[in-house]
Amino acid sequence: MFFLTPVLVAVLCILVVWIFKNADRNIQRKKGEPGARTKSRAWVDEDLRDSTYLHQAEEDADEWQESEENVEHIPFSHTRYPEKEMTKRSQEFYELLNKRRSVRFISNEQIPMEVIDNVIKAAGTAPSGAHTEPWTFVVVKDPDVKHEIRKIVEEEEEINYMKRMGHRWVTDLKKLRTNWIKDYLDSAPVLILIFKQVHGFAANGKKTVHYYNEISVSIACGILLAALQIVKTVPKELVLISLLNLQ
Amino acid sequence: MFFLTPVLVAVLCILVVWIFKNADRNIQRKKGEPGARTKSRAWVDEDLRDSTYLHQAEEDADEWQESEENVEHIPFSHTRYPEKEMTKRSQEFYELLNKRRSVRFISNEQIPMEVIDNVIKAAGTAPSGAHTEPWTFVVVKDPDVKHEIRKIVEEEEEINYMKRMGHRWVTDLKKLRTNWIKDYLDSAPVLILIFKQVHGFAANGKKTVHYYNEISVSIACGILLAALQIVKTVPKELVLISLLNLQ
Repeated sequence: MFFLTPVLVAVLCILVVWIFKNADRNIQRKKGEPGARTKSRAWVDEDLRDSTYLHQAEEDADEWQESEENVEHIPFSHTRYPEKEMTKRSQEFYELLNKRRSVRFISNEQIPMEVIDNVIKAAGTAPSGAHTEPWTFVVVKDPDVKHEIRKIVEEEEEINYMKRMGHRWVTDLKKLRTNWIKDYLDSAPVLILIFKQVHGFAANGKKTVHYYNEISVSIACGILLAALQIVKTVPKELVLISLLNLQ
Repeated sequence: MFFLTPVLVAVLCILVVWIFKNADRNIQRKKGEPGARTKSRAWVDEDLRDSTYLHQAEEDADEWQESEENVEHIPFSHTRYPEKEMTKRSQEFYELLNKRRSVRFISNEQIPMEVIDNVIKAAGTAPSGAHTEPWTFVVVKDPDVKHEIRKIVEEEEEINYMKRMGHRWVTDLKKLRTNWIKDYLDSAPVLILIFKQVHGFAANGKKTVHYYNEISVSIACGILLAALQIVKTVPKELVLISLLNLQ
């Protein structure tokens, strides 16, 4: 039996693989050496590899000198609680987080935009590969846009269930009683779309590498979930979908 | 200028790609159809794909029926703060998280194991693909084991800097002034190693699929960082390394 109470905010985490990622791969294929690369870089992370080899031949040593001048160093301060207080705070945080559920019914009650801003700012404090901060958060409130998003997500998710993901995946999901219908994407007052940036651009227009971008964005999602739970706005399940061609 | 104050806990997040992942790939290669798979599953996540096709031919429909009997449903409860309170809480959480830094100097002061247990329990509340919870947290306090870990990490990291990651990566890291020496792995009283499980095992010994395992583990890392910041034990940078052959 499910006792899912309507909640306040829907977080739709769509981790989008930019279309550029496809482009990167095509370039690599044209070089005709994917086998050699895989072999020599066996220990390197997938998403790192994808965007790194684009730039191997480039000479970018000057870029550091340029950017260094603009770096502002912020003094680090640190407060330590007494041990008893540390234990108490860690216990309370665990108990609060442990109340989070991935619900499928979302209340349409409005919440202040300031709260949405704050939880996204908190997520943006996440560490990231070489401090590239490879994320984009998009807040959607417009009912028509939300509905368009729902249609895209449902269409892709239906393909997941019907053929893309295979029999095993569908079987494994049965106990969760989920399907591809996502009516909460209409009912939730706010959707937060989370995009990963597989690369960035330098001031001179050159592509820059976003190391470990998927891991970094996912860590930011973890902090976002914690922030939402702190304000007791229980978020929607994380819909973790890689959409190759969403533009 | 850096003003890095010694802190309490080092979190070493080593995201380990099990050696089985290699095995999975070998099996796939033997099937001789990687091209076809890539084409028909273009939208499917990398880590999902890696472990899924191992099981496509298997008939596991019975497993759900078995596991369903053991499922315990926990009623969902939800508290909503007044809007003003929500805003205040989200603001405070952001300000606290914004004080987190990826430091390279770690205090050797001890902290209660109960705190470590609680922050790991909090991380374990993270959502995960099909609720597979594909993570293993390992707490290391023994100085000899810590030192062995340091040697492994430094050895791999030196290869990263010297040849594996390439010129561009080394250039991009220059402004962070990092290198492969990790003496904080000795000085920190506690290391938390975080492993991703690319698959699990069912009661009958069969391999089970851990969907989106890297994303799921990274989300758990985000919550772990938030939990550590809540107790004001500022964590070490996330060392996000994929180690293919660490056993």
